[in-house]
Amino acid sequence: MPLKANDPSRKSWIPVPADSDFPIQNIPFGVFLTRDDVITIGTRIGDHAIDLGALHQLGYFKDIPLTDDIFLQDSLNDFISDGKKTWRLVRNRISELFEQGNRELQDNEEHRGIVLFTMDEIEMQLPVQIGDYTDFYSSREHATNVGKMFRDPENALLPNWLHIPVGYHGRSSTIVPGGTPIRRPYGQTMPQGKDSPVFGPSGLVDFELEMAFITTDANAMGDPIPVTEAEDYIFGLVLFNDWSARDIQKWEYVPLGPFLAKNFASSISPWIITLDALEPFRVASPKQEPEPLPYLRHSGKNSFDIRLEVELTPEDGEPTTISRSNFKYLYWSMAQQLAHHTVNGCKVNSGDMMGSGTISGPTPDSYGSMLELAWQGTRPIRLKNGETRKAIEDNDTVTMRGYCLKNGLRIGFGEVSTKLLPALPPRKTK
Amino acid sequence: MPLKANDPSRKSWIPVPADSDFPIQNIPFGVFLTRDDVITIGTRIGDHAIDLGALHQLGYFKDIPLTDDIFLQDSLNDFISDGKKTWRLVRNRISELFEQGNRELQDNEEHRGIVLFTMDEIEMQLPVQIGDYTDFYSSREHATNVGKMFRDPENALLPNWLHIPVGYHGRSSTIVPGGTPIRRPYGQTMPQGKDSPVFGPSGLVDFELEMAFITTDANAMGDPIPVTEAEDYIFGLVLFNDWSARDIQKWEYVPLGPFLAKNFASSISPWIITLDALEPFRVASPKQEPEPLPYLRHSGKNSFDIRLEVELTPEDGEPTTISRSNFKYLYWSMAQQLAHHTVNGCKVNSGDMMGSGTISGPTPDSYGSMLELAWQGTRPIRLKNGETRKAIEDNDTVTMRGYCLKNGLRIGFGEVSTKLLPALPPRKTK
Repeated sequence: MPLKANDPSRKSWIPVPADSDFPIQNIPFGVFLTRDDVITIGTRIGDHAIDLGALHQLGYFKDIPLTDDIFLQDSLNDFISDGKKTWRLVRNRISELFEQGNRELQDNEEHRGIVLFTMDEIEMQLPVQIGDYTDFYSSREHATNVGKMFRDPENALLPNWLHIPVGYHGRSSTIVPGGTPIRRPYGQTMPQGKDSPVFGPSGLVDFELEMAFITTDANAMGDPIPVTEAEDYIFGLVLFNDWSARDIQKWEYVPLGPFLAKNFASSISPWIITLDALEPFRVASPKQEPEPLPYLRHSGKNSFDIRLEVELTPEDGEPTTISRSNFKYLYWSMAQQLAHHTVNGCKVNSGDMMGSGTISGPTPDSYGSMLELAWQGTRPIRLKNGETRKAIEDNDTVTMRGYCLKNGLRIGFGEVSTKLLPALPPRKTK
Repeated sequence: MPLKANDPSRKSWIPVPADSDFPIQNIPFGVFLTRDDVITIGTRIGDHAIDLGALHQLGYFKDIPLTDDIFLQDSLNDFISDGKKTWRLVRNRISELFEQGNRELQDNEEHRGIVLFTMDEIEMQLPVQIGDYTDFYSSREHATNVGKMFRDPENALLPNWLHIPVGYHGRSSTIVPGGTPIRRPYGQTMPQGKDSPVFGPSGLVDFELEMAFITTDANAMGDPIPVTEAEDYIFGLVLFNDWSARDIQKWEYVPLGPFLAKNFASSISPWIITLDALEPFRVASPKQEPEPLPYLRHSGKNSFDIRLEVELTPEDGEPTTISRSNFKYLYWSMAQQLAHHTVNGCKVNSGDMMGSGTISGPTPDSYGSMLELAWQGTRPIRLKNGETRKAIEDNDTVTMRGYCLKNGLRIGFGEVSTKLLPALPPRKTK
């Protein structure tokens, strides 16, 4: 049954620019700081943010079973913990309240003044307190490209890749919302042809174009989540830039995986787009051959057609779009990732985040990292200002955008845009 | 300057059995549920737990700057966040209050009745809410044993091992206190000589004898912690059993590291022993050759002489000690681990946990995992009841203990004891 809030004919009494990612059919969830320095949970329509904490205090959610302070928090974790039924009731109510014909709030100037903000009046925060963060490696094209470059071009995919949604644990403490500048990291690297490592700023900082989903409390420790139920425990998705230092990674990652090459910073877009809002854009995942083991089998449309792009902007320069990819290229679905993650009884909590892995498409202009786009530095990317890039340089800004578009309905993620600051000056060592 | 609370001549008016891990010189910190179902932060002397929340309410910490509810919490995170100076003031005050000659509380029967519990009246909880958990791989003997078994006996250590305190991110959500039984996990494995994987309960569940340290908020994102300051940000240590499913690990871990083979469960001892309490037991780490890069160099005694043992108890059987090791065997110090972890600007928070990696000693009876003790199944371990083990079997209990002993002073960790329950019965798949 189609969700009422997804009705494409619905319009809001809040003006929505023609190419906006945030029509009334979106209703994302985020956390922001208001002009009065209050932290609240909110949503967005067009270029206006809506304070859900204030709306709830004013009684606009009175028919929905919600605790009084559910939106007066600095993270969405408790709301997400309320579960899918509640998410839908709230989304439907917001959709109804801001629909063109609804006069309840529209005619109440005082209330409008309390709950509505223009985007420049607020500061977006991290939407969830992320307990555990896992990163998958679910793009066949990306895994193949990496295998070709670093291992065997003839056997690029490792033997387990077509059987397992390969993933690993990442670090939550350095996940920041878009807009937060990050620093070029220091680290150990082993220079080509040398036999002892050196220490200094990474010379190969890279982005990874990913998306990530946010879960609700899904299971007791010891209990797996069946693949056919897994989507019920996914609240929504964000854009995700999994910053990577390739030179540090190369030296450190055998045998236990990437560590300092990744955990200096990861950036996410601040609005979580619910699976409900993405429903009209469902598509099938790529055919899986060989067929996965039974615990990973599901049928139907388990992916979404989300257009992705990456823009690189040098300091004082204009942006160049350097990649266009799509979420639908991912080989393993989110449901498969979550079922695999919990098949051993691993517990998933509200606010956990799971990244897709770099989303590379089939063509060289759809690769999701500079490593692949410039093919290990052998095909430098040309920018509009004439400069070239094999890696991200100091004061470059990387911006990722994502949106769905079908029959005139556009549901988008906004952007995650991050500037890479130069490394700190070296410290004196004793 | 020696810490007053470490004075070995000090005795408590609470009786302390001769071989107790918890004399008045220990003063560990933990979280427990009282007979009245109240969660509180506490300490332990002998076989008595002390409710620090109640002690504080009764005014016994009035000269220390502490918030009113600092101990009335379900985790130590906020207290740990108060920093080393406060930890010491509180430890000194507890030491003073429970010292033989001190009558303040000793003579107040009503107050004693409120704050003192016997250990069977309380239920220990996880002491911290662990934000991020990292596991290192810092035992040279363990890394060498694994290299000999799985890679090249002649070049057992990987090239980066002597330069980097190798580590990787683990999962916080499934870390449980000792006493919590865990379940044999399901997972994918690739049977020897086959070319497609199978799904079922792991056949090779193993323990890993580790210790782990708990940090305080140490740095802003982007700022490294110098190795010479790192210990100031370590609150204390616990025993740590890093449960592992070797068959799952073997199939999944290339190229991104262990994942489901580890995240089904990890067990810690519930009392955190502070670095201050361990101070009398400092020893030097093994000599490091080649010398590490400058950011990892420190001098002096950077390790601790902590005797460790592992006991295996089959159901209805008697315990067999299967390993005796020591924390001092670790090649990389905690200070080096923390300095390395943050050298790229990675942020460390209060309550983060960092495991040592399996602590194997130089002799076969000091190896820290069944994998090594039974040398990949080729030398089964014999138990006292005549049974043998190559891996942990259903309903086996693994118990780890640790203590320091010097000049008659014993400071211990208690134990982490965990029963492995059989796998859940298989579910029907659609």
